[in-house]
Amino acid sequence: MTDAMMKTVACVGTGVIGRGWIYNFVRAGCHTRAYDKDSSQIDQAITWLKGTLKQDIADGFLTEEKGEAMARLVTLHTNLREALDGVEYVQESGPEVMDIKNAMFAEMDRWTDPKTILASSASSLNINEFTAGIPGMDRCILAHPFNPPHIIPAVEVMPTKKTDPNVVDRTIAFLKSLGHKPMLINFFVSGYLINRIQAAVVREAIHLVESGLCNAEAVDTAIKDGLGLRWVILGNFGTNHTNAVGGIREYYGKFGKVYQSMMKALDSTPPSFDDEMVERFGKQLDEIYGRVPVDQISKWRDRLIRKIRRLKDEDPNP
Amino acid sequence: MTDAMMKTVACVGTGVIGRGWIYNFVRAGCHTRAYDKDSSQIDQAITWLKGTLKQDIADGFLTEEKGEAMARLVTLHTNLREALDGVEYVQESGPEVMDIKNAMFAEMDRWTDPKTILASSASSLNINEFTAGIPGMDRCILAHPFNPPHIIPAVEVMPTKKTDPNVVDRTIAFLKSLGHKPMLINFFVSGYLINRIQAAVVREAIHLVESGLCNAEAVDTAIKDGLGLRWVILGNFGTNHTNAVGGIREYYGKFGKVYQSMMKALDSTPPSFDDEMVERFGKQLDEIYGRVPVDQISKWRDRLIRKIRRLKDEDPNP
Repeated sequence: MTDAMMKTVACVGTGVIGRGWIYNFVRAGCHTRAYDKDSSQIDQAITWLKGTLKQDIADGFLTEEKGEAMARLVTLHTNLREALDGVEYVQESGPEVMDIKNAMFAEMDRWTDPKTILASSASSLNINEFTAGIPGMDRCILAHPFNPPHIIPAVEVMPTKKTDPNVVDRTIAFLKSLGHKPMLINFFVSGYLINRIQAAVVREAIHLVESGLCNAEAVDTAIKDGLGLRWVILGNFGTNHTNAVGGIREYYGKFGKVYQSMMKALDSTPPSFDDEMVERFGKQLDEIYGRVPVDQISKWRDRLIRKIRRLKDEDPNP
Repeated sequence: MTDAMMKTVACVGTGVIGRGWIYNFVRAGCHTRAYDKDSSQIDQAITWLKGTLKQDIADGFLTEEKGEAMARLVTLHTNLREALDGVEYVQESGPEVMDIKNAMFAEMDRWTDPKTILASSASSLNINEFTAGIPGMDRCILAHPFNPPHIIPAVEVMPTKKTDPNVVDRTIAFLKSLGHKPMLINFFVSGYLINRIQAAVVREAIHLVESGLCNAEAVDTAIKDGLGLRWVILGNFGTNHTNAVGGIREYYGKFGKVYQSMMKALDSTPPSFDDEMVERFGKQLDEIYGRVPVDQISKWRDRLIRKIRRLKDEDPNP
């Protein structure tokens, strides 16, 4: 364990996001308190954890010994005060509802030491609003993972207006020690960072299909067999940097005007998302994936993502 | 060789794109005529081809025998009529200039059999304009690869207004037999398909950095360690489909309103791309990649892309 590591942490809320965090914490060796006011929700999370560990051992991502050690690090709690006693880091993953998060943070603040970091998995709310008035607002921070959190390393980190810079640094260091790739967002905007980029792609992708230019499968080919192959290695700016021998200066210098005219041609009207539109895309996806259950596609996706991550780890940035 | 395969093809223009096509054609076993009016350009292309084959053998992507067989399939031509004699498929990869492409297609039409497919690597021009008035416009088609063409499988295919549907089918089948992933675009729009999606990402990415929300590295982390990991496997719509257990119908139904409000918040003004802006990004990329030459980053990227493609081929869509 490095200095950045937290010995004892709590997961407040054990739904799909919370249980992913539990996996990450125990993989890193943290004693992990799983709290939910609903004991059947905790049971589900533990069933998921055990099933996932078993599958990961079968798939060769974990040794049997490691999987067993991980399972032993979780304790289950339906009493919040007890769950939070002596923890160094709390990860809240409750419902995306302002009042619920606000009440939860007030309680988390009450039952923890003033040095404990209080992090939220909020995915769209403004953290400045749901931590407003909390005495410990200076130790509140956003740590928004990407689904599923135990597969995708990116995590958005955003301080409140009052967050102590030291809390930001400690959170980033801790997330890195878990194997995450945190990125710092300086202030709140709608969609934060990742979902804005995603929205830009979804908007143009839907527009192209709805305009009759091509079908949904063509757009997905463009991304999975084209753009995505470069993006997954270099991101956006890194890709731009390798698009000209002189790097991003040459690329933006040469193609800035071309980009401007293309950007002006993009449709900036959001799609309707009405029932007819949703059904048109539903039918196209049926054609692409047949009637394979979504859950099966997701398992395949997660297995491949882990293999790609391993490839990238084995052959890092020169 | 399948029925879709062409026995003898010509590459007209042997720059960066043309030489990538030469690699693809000989890999598939096509007798390949490399034409350029400039013999030093052909020499450079052949030097590149030999170096690439050597490196690919060293990296385990090709056997020595296969590499040697590939090199033997290329013949060099500075006489267009001779290069085109008896070929079944021509891939034009000349300069992105309307008049030059127009003149080239007129010649290609003149010196080939009426059954020969005349394809263009044009990346931004309207194919209806540079093939207008060519008697064989019905056998002209766009086949725009993604750089580097021998690494990235995606190819945009777009018919002219007069292209015979049979030419579209044969081109798509041939590209697939080369290992490409063609996508059909029904008509011309600025940026075609891929570059429009890319422009949507570049625009929002630059906007987020310029607004002070985060730095360029954070955007790249969001993509390479977040969005890109899902996109490279599922594309945009496939990713949306796995974002809810009920698939894309449930996802768009539930989050359509959230997307609409986020899409309205995106900045649709193109960035200035003025010298100061370009230099701000240049400096950030210097920080990310140090002073590693772009060429070295590109080589690493291409090696990883091939490994990722192999992973995907080994564990295809369930």
